[in-house]
Amino acid sequence: MGSTERRRVQHLRDGSWRAGPDALAVEEPLEIEVDGVPASTTMRTTDHDVELALGWLVSEGAIAHRDDVAEAKECFERDGEFEDDDVRRIVQVRGRLPLQVRPRLHMTTSACGVCGSDLIDLTTRTRRWPLTDDDTAFDVDAVLAQPEGLLVAQRGFTASGGLHAAGLFTSSGELLCAREDVGRHNAVDKVVGWALLEDRIPLRGHSLQVSGRASAELVHKAVVAGIPLLASVSAPTTLAVDLARESGLTLVGFVRDGGLNVYSGGHRLGLAEA
Amino acid sequence: MGSTERRRVQHLRDGSWRAGPDALAVEEPLEIEVDGVPASTTMRTTDHDVELALGWLVSEGAIAHRDDVAEAKECFERDGEFEDDDVRRIVQVRGRLPLQVRPRLHMTTSACGVCGSDLIDLTTRTRRWPLTDDDTAFDVDAVLAQPEGLLVAQRGFTASGGLHAAGLFTSSGELLCAREDVGRHNAVDKVVGWALLEDRIPLRGHSLQVSGRASAELVHKAVVAGIPLLASVSAPTTLAVDLARESGLTLVGFVRDGGLNVYSGGHRLGLAEA
Repeated sequence: MGSTERRRVQHLRDGSWRAGPDALAVEEPLEIEVDGVPASTTMRTTDHDVELALGWLVSEGAIAHRDDVAEAKECFERDGEFEDDDVRRIVQVRGRLPLQVRPRLHMTTSACGVCGSDLIDLTTRTRRWPLTDDDTAFDVDAVLAQPEGLLVAQRGFTASGGLHAAGLFTSSGELLCAREDVGRHNAVDKVVGWALLEDRIPLRGHSLQVSGRASAELVHKAVVAGIPLLASVSAPTTLAVDLARESGLTLVGFVRDGGLNVYSGGHRLGLAEA
Repeated sequence: MGSTERRRVQHLRDGSWRAGPDALAVEEPLEIEVDGVPASTTMRTTDHDVELALGWLVSEGAIAHRDDVAEAKECFERDGEFEDDDVRRIVQVRGRLPLQVRPRLHMTTSACGVCGSDLIDLTTRTRRWPLTDDDTAFDVDAVLAQPEGLLVAQRGFTASGGLHAAGLFTSSGELLCAREDVGRHNAVDKVVGWALLEDRIPLRGHSLQVSGRASAELVHKAVVAGIPLLASVSAPTTLAVDLARESGLTLVGFVRDGGLNVYSGGHRLGLAEA
């Protein structure tokens, strides 16, 4: 099972049709079980499932260090009456101490995962490392180069054109980890889960580059993982900007064509506050 | 409250910085209450809230006609201890008969809203108008022109660059309704809610154009609203293609630069099946 699969497609190009196989991003459900109890089902692209589950638990505030996790394993359950395709994929996580995962009844969000009228309150309650302590100076040229660095890593993964990407960079622009998913929030969870397994959280002095827009959900995930700079190739939302300012995060948007916009925390890029 | 608000931003262009206000897509929570019970909280862009709630209820299979709705109204609740900003926005919907909304505990999805290991089963249970009955012939040139038609409508709405759009077209390419949102699924819900209020569901013979990728969630929403053709400017996922084929939906992707890909239901575009 890879992150892409082939489907047959009919192409129209320059007025003429041809048919052939095409590689598409896989979208399949993954269940996350915490201390034996179902905690979440997410539609995701099938790779790095354990990282995805652990990164999601960091965002939920349930874990913060590798030592918080006693065991994390991927397993499969086959329902007797179904075909091969109907194998359920589950990541089971057990904590050193019982893990607290807040209930999420009847909640959806445009960015998924975290939601609610009190996202700023939630971020404040969940974060453990105030970003205001992190005075890392980032190189503007390094930030400008991040989307291309992420794109080069993406080309190595897939050719589907349908995947979001997230990449973790050092302040001087070295790419440490890149992950892809049909869901932008999942790509970030996979990166944060990787960092947890590498015992690198809080991610002081690091920068997170995302391929899409910057929603409040992604700001929340960066803040809770201790990442001081979030950069997007597109626009942030109002709530993303408000949450970034409240949290001391440097929020950068529209990183493209040699330019960028700074919405919050410009001091880490050598700017006086707007 | 509009769909964009201004925030101060520092721009880097051609090596020099300047500061000024920038219009950003609003992202705020909306609660949907059904027959007096909280049913969902969604992060959305603040316009067409009643349409959003009704379209979401169509996707959930709770309503299918305008007559299923006794009342739908937007209201505000202010919590005594909070500031002006902390007004909760709620759409309250009451059905002619009690509305069945399935519980969604612990579920998230890359596309949000619908999820689970049985999306194909859910779509089969929820749809009321089999698309196989809809033999509408669509004009390929009209489909090729849809993204530009939607973009022209978007320019009329906002200048934020951060909003997804969905547009409902006739088979000859006339744009009937265009809606925007930070969440692609919300933009589709707003269009479907508009159609419900206009008493146009099932949307036989219509085409739905979306600005982003095509996930299984969006295929589900099109099928349940009776829309026979879904077109995206980008890639579909594997599950989107599988669900479209299972449901008899015509699924078109990468509508750009005078070309497109057909993943399912090519007969409505005059093609033999691949």
